Amino acid sequence: MLDREIAERITAAVNARFDDQLAWTAELVRSPSLRAQETDAQDLIEGALLESGLTVDRWAIDSPELRDHEGYGPTTVDPATLENVVGTYTPVVEHGRSLILNGHVDVVPTGPQESWSRSPWDASIVDGWMYGRGSADMKAGIGANLFALEALRTAGYRPTARIHVQSVVEEECTGNGSLAALLRGYTADACVIPEPEDDKLVRANVGVLWFDVTVRGVPTHLREMSNGRNAIDAAYTIMNDLRELEDRWNRRKGEHRYFADVERPINFNFGVINGGDWPSSVPARCTFTVRAAIYPGTPAAQAWAEIQEVLAKSEASLGLPVAATPSGFFAEGYVLEEGSAAEDVLARSHERVFGSVLESFTTPGYLDGRVFTLYGDIPCLVYGPVSEAIHGLDERVEVESIRRITTAIALFVAEWCGVEPITD
Amino acid sequence: MLDREIAERITAAVNARFDDQLAWTAELVRSPSLRAQETDAQDLIEGALLESGLTVDRWAIDSPELRDHEGYGPTTVDPATLENVVGTYTPVVEHGRSLILNGHVDVVPTGPQESWSRSPWDASIVDGWMYGRGSADMKAGIGANLFALEALRTAGYRPTARIHVQSVVEEECTGNGSLAALLRGYTADACVIPEPEDDKLVRANVGVLWFDVTVRGVPTHLREMSNGRNAIDAAYTIMNDLRELEDRWNRRKGEHRYFADVERPINFNFGVINGGDWPSSVPARCTFTVRAAIYPGTPAAQAWAEIQEVLAKSEASLGLPVAATPSGFFAEGYVLEEGSAAEDVLARSHERVFGSVLESFTTPGYLDGRVFTLYGDIPCLVYGPVSEAIHGLDERVEVESIRRITTAIALFVAEWCGVEPITD
Repeated sequence: MLDREIAERITAAVNARFDDQLAWTAELVRSPSLRAQETDAQDLIEGALLESGLTVDRWAIDSPELRDHEGYGPTTVDPATLENVVGTYTPVVEHGRSLILNGHVDVVPTGPQESWSRSPWDASIVDGWMYGRGSADMKAGIGANLFALEALRTAGYRPTARIHVQSVVEEECTGNGSLAALLRGYTADACVIPEPEDDKLVRANVGVLWFDVTVRGVPTHLREMSNGRNAIDAAYTIMNDLRELEDRWNRRKGEHRYFADVERPINFNFGVINGGDWPSSVPARCTFTVRAAIYPGTPAAQAWAEIQEVLAKSEASLGLPVAATPSGFFAEGYVLEEGSAAEDVLARSHERVFGSVLESFTTPGYLDGRVFTLYGDIPCLVYGPVSEAIHGLDERVEVESIRRITTAIALFVAEWCGVEPITD
Repeated sequence: MLDREIAERITAAVNARFDDQLAWTAELVRSPSLRAQETDAQDLIEGALLESGLTVDRWAIDSPELRDHEGYGPTTVDPATLENVVGTYTPVVEHGRSLILNGHVDVVPTGPQESWSRSPWDASIVDGWMYGRGSADMKAGIGANLFALEALRTAGYRPTARIHVQSVVEEECTGNGSLAALLRGYTADACVIPEPEDDKLVRANVGVLWFDVTVRGVPTHLREMSNGRNAIDAAYTIMNDLRELEDRWNRRKGEHRYFADVERPINFNFGVINGGDWPSSVPARCTFTVRAAIYPGTPAAQAWAEIQEVLAKSEASLGLPVAATPSGFFAEGYVLEEGSAAEDVLARSHERVFGSVLESFTTPGYLDGRVFTLYGDIPCLVYGPVSEAIHGLDERVEVESIRRITTAIALFVAEWCGVEPITD
């Protein structure tokens, strides 16, 4: 249990540095770290880690171990071109529990920018919300990790355990960034990921598969349309078949711990579609990308086999060639088992800041938490600020929520890792 | 009625020049005159027209008259960058009937080239068929026009009426090329267009509209998918609404002359689709292009109003913004009235070559014939060779059919325009 005076000093320090934290976070939001364009944002983070006195490790995530791992997400974006950044704090005397503070630097595309109220990259704060693509998901969280540690220092303390502050890539598409960090040897007694979770802790979350489906039609002139087979029409038939699988999986939610009360835990999203090349030709090809969710405990390979079975039936009933390829996440879901010491410490930290009990919930979205939980045997606390419209238009994060989350993380670090006064 | 000896000489001349004709046609097929890339092919045709002693007019098709015309197809491809070529033959003494020999030089995209048996641009002749994109639609026809005139000259005759040999652009997307030629003042007592019509004459054909439909969704993270509205799913709903309109129009086929016996005269084709930008985001936008057919006698504007009504209902029932814009053909269909002198002459020429009666039929595909018929009051004979897979994979045209069609056109020219022996 953290000493009350220490807690108050740390809380005061978070508040003292909060304007700096917001300014730094805004600067990070203004760096459009879309997939494979994370270099500038990683530079900024690397600079901040160095300034905080951490040892920095920056490396391209590719490795044979990564590609061979069952949790690897197949991708056409060369992992050799993508860099993780990890800052390591090494204590003078080590007697606490070690910790990973993880965050992802990559953000999803903006969608039509003209549909935003302002530029997705200007990081304006309006009525208590910071706007921008990635503001909530999850640059506020990266800032929270960094400034939680800063707050300890400002308050005059240093942790007494090893801490790795990770800024990973690929969380939005494959999860290969966190996986690469784990495979590089970064492990700890607990992990915190401040994803935008509405001040709550994630108890369970789905796995996710991405795959491309290509159907080939029989192109022809429209005057002979009955001889042609429209690949765009066929794509929609396949989508309907997949929607049936989605329904089937949703109907099984009662069999899965923590999912029975989620309204619709399994979502299939048709996120991208491209087909045809000429309005007056029956399209020869249509490709669409599916994001499919799966329950924890279902290996990705097993779900993939079931999906392929459905697609084989579509192919047979259409009589047209259908090809499907994994093209990103190939990820199992996870459950954060109740009763871990890490969760106890977070619950205390949360209650001290929020004055209310830490709630946990089940989320039907992908999280890198699965990497640490499934493959590192590390209790992973996904816990972060209040947001709206992540992946949508006018994504935003609540400023006061960032302050509270940062404080809770700082108190968590202090109790989990232990602190001692800075004497030198 | 054409003198038998003259007919035989002309027939022999077509045969004598037929290898040259095939070689020239193959060269034209090897020039990939995709939309807005017709320059090289037009150079080739211009050269051939000049070599045949015609006066050449080559001009960019744009004009205020064109853009204001009711038959103009709206387009984002600047008409100022697109050139028609017309070669004019002027007789020494004029006492026959004038003629337009029209063909379009533009070809549709190939679709996936790996699905072709050979390159779409190699113009191979295999088992009596010339292959290649545009081989049938309609470079064989352009060759037929040119070599029909060549045959007269080779046989020792020259026409006694004005002839315009047209190589127009935009037949595959707007029809603005032929329209621009008409507006430039090219008119005549008849027009022949050797489109690939299986050795038959087109009696009636549909009008065509192209339009883009864009639906905006409500993008969101998948974990909140129930709050999002997938634009790709919404596009499918709209397509279904349009399919209902298509069915409604098809059910009315009995009300339209020459269409009652066509199995399915009205085809709506969803030819191109693009939507979304990230598999794990609910797509904010989906755009698809529709090619819709309409009966002759239905003005494009009237059909467009009916289509917009359907889309307005889709918009209302979806509760999502739906926008539609004409993006190409805005074309009424036409009927070739029976009993014209031009058709009589063609019927005689055809019978002499084929030994069988000229059949006419109704085609559910767009033809530039509407330009001459509707806006020039010129009987337009769309009549050309046997083909397979136009707009499809392995498009091809039957070589012997080219020979016969060329002969029939040559005999038609001789009788329609009249001929006299070349004396100088």
